[in-house]
Amino acid sequence: MGDPNVPTSEHSHREDDIIERITRIVSSAFINRGETHIGDDAAVLSPTVGQMVISTDVCIAGVHLETTLFSIEDLGFKAITTAVSDLAAMGARPRCCVVAVSAPSGVDLDALHAGMAQASTFVEIPIVGGDIAKGTDLSVAVTVVGEAPGGGAVLRSGARAGDTLLVTRPLGRSAAGLRLARTGAGLDNELVLAHRRPWPRLAEGLAARDATVHAMMDLSDGLGLDLHRLADASGVGFVLDDVPVAPGATLAEAISGGEDYELLIATDDPDTLFALFRQRGLEVPLPIGLVVSDAGVRTWRDTPFARVGYQHEL
Amino acid sequence: MGDPNVPTSEHSHREDDIIERITRIVSSAFINRGETHIGDDAAVLSPTVGQMVISTDVCIAGVHLETTLFSIEDLGFKAITTAVSDLAAMGARPRCCVVAVSAPSGVDLDALHAGMAQASTFVEIPIVGGDIAKGTDLSVAVTVVGEAPGGGAVLRSGARAGDTLLVTRPLGRSAAGLRLARTGAGLDNELVLAHRRPWPRLAEGLAARDATVHAMMDLSDGLGLDLHRLADASGVGFVLDDVPVAPGATLAEAISGGEDYELLIATDDPDTLFALFRQRGLEVPLPIGLVVSDAGVRTWRDTPFARVGYQHEL
Repeated sequence: MGDPNVPTSEHSHREDDIIERITRIVSSAFINRGETHIGDDAAVLSPTVGQMVISTDVCIAGVHLETTLFSIEDLGFKAITTAVSDLAAMGARPRCCVVAVSAPSGVDLDALHAGMAQASTFVEIPIVGGDIAKGTDLSVAVTVVGEAPGGGAVLRSGARAGDTLLVTRPLGRSAAGLRLARTGAGLDNELVLAHRRPWPRLAEGLAARDATVHAMMDLSDGLGLDLHRLADASGVGFVLDDVPVAPGATLAEAISGGEDYELLIATDDPDTLFALFRQRGLEVPLPIGLVVSDAGVRTWRDTPFARVGYQHEL
Repeated sequence: MGDPNVPTSEHSHREDDIIERITRIVSSAFINRGETHIGDDAAVLSPTVGQMVISTDVCIAGVHLETTLFSIEDLGFKAITTAVSDLAAMGARPRCCVVAVSAPSGVDLDALHAGMAQASTFVEIPIVGGDIAKGTDLSVAVTVVGEAPGGGAVLRSGARAGDTLLVTRPLGRSAAGLRLARTGAGLDNELVLAHRRPWPRLAEGLAARDATVHAMMDLSDGLGLDLHRLADASGVGFVLDDVPVAPGATLAEAISGGEDYELLIATDDPDTLFALFRQRGLEVPLPIGLVVSDAGVRTWRDTPFARVGYQHEL
């Protein structure tokens, strides 16, 4: 085993050495008394407060992020924050995550983990374990665990007729950012940032849960697909009257571009929702339509709202 | 979205359809009141009883299992049981797992998930969520969550001078099974089964925890590597006097073949350990040596015990 105090110009490729190096990169300050994070067969943490919420997401270089345009740090960052978005969607707060990486030889694993470590610090979710294997793809599977104290997690399936539908921000920023990056926009362009460094709406998800909304999900594949999924899960229809388009994005990007990671919310009490968001200094969600009881009714300005969005072909 | 009641001769390749089909394959009977498993942004489960234990493992076709010899069901089965072995290693009992799959077009995802579903049923760990993406490799990242009520999880780091070291069974079965399969042995050969359908020592891990052993880990990379890892974590050395070799395996396979998933245990009270194992109808662990205080002493029959075992080159 390499001595961590001896600087080396060439990085070792042995598994134990790599894991030791990466552990230093991702190790967290958020270790409670009695907890063990990286280094054992498994991490040991104190129990969740309230319900345990868990989700896993794969992020593959070239599929989920164009590695010709963006850095490997971006891939690591995005893998973490998009996984955490599923906790936001439940109104859960993050507890921990584990990361399973497969990578071909020569990939800068330090940079990948530096990106993950930064996201982990930013959203306050410690990386408590991981695994690394050699593969053809560069792929990161992130599993996030959160907790939902009090009223419990918010599901997709609770929308009821008469509920107002809202989204946390105008849509289409991520797809517009990718389009702009492809045509030469800088990496710090606000829309490009939305694509390469998406931010999970954790504070908004908690506020929505505290406002006892009926249903919630995150918009990962576009409103054109995800709104139908929420309606399917709730057994309802919808009458959409507005699709808020982010400045710089097109309507098509707002509907089917995907990867916005904004929250879609259904509630019968939008005033309470607005008040709670304002109190906490959060941007107030935007109403987009109403839930109706007939699951066959799915319209936008009186015409059928097509089921379109990002679907992987498998 | 396809109607699940309409049989189709050609499987759909659309993400939503595939996920619907796979959900039927892996859905579990182990759903407690108030829990939501597959189908929302995240699964919602009741809190862990005692410490939460979490680990993730990647399993890649061709790297972790030779797909020319073994089936895709085997890959799914092995991905689950080897991940669960990390819970056994902590003395934790399984609560849930999530599976992140990446696969090229044409892979029989139903068969992969059927193998995972069988393992999930056998070891009683519900698959509560997952993700699928298209990649070049066929890769499965399994994250397992367990719980350690009472005395808490058993770490690698607790071995003390004077402790007896034990393993739960003779070693080398998996490597011997792979060798035999390559030379034409049948898939039901006992050693071949140990390689393609490894079994996590959950009952043994719980019994060892109840016997308040000092340290424990699972032997995934071979005693020649893992015993050093346990000694490193505990800051101790060891004097090994026996390496129990499974019938049909070679000494080299027992030391460095890896993938046996037997448990390595350190305890100052082997008699209590034996009694508890006997009471529960479990095969009694085999003593292999002693822990010594000098971390530089790592011998086998008075000669240095080399650090050799399975290491991925990354």
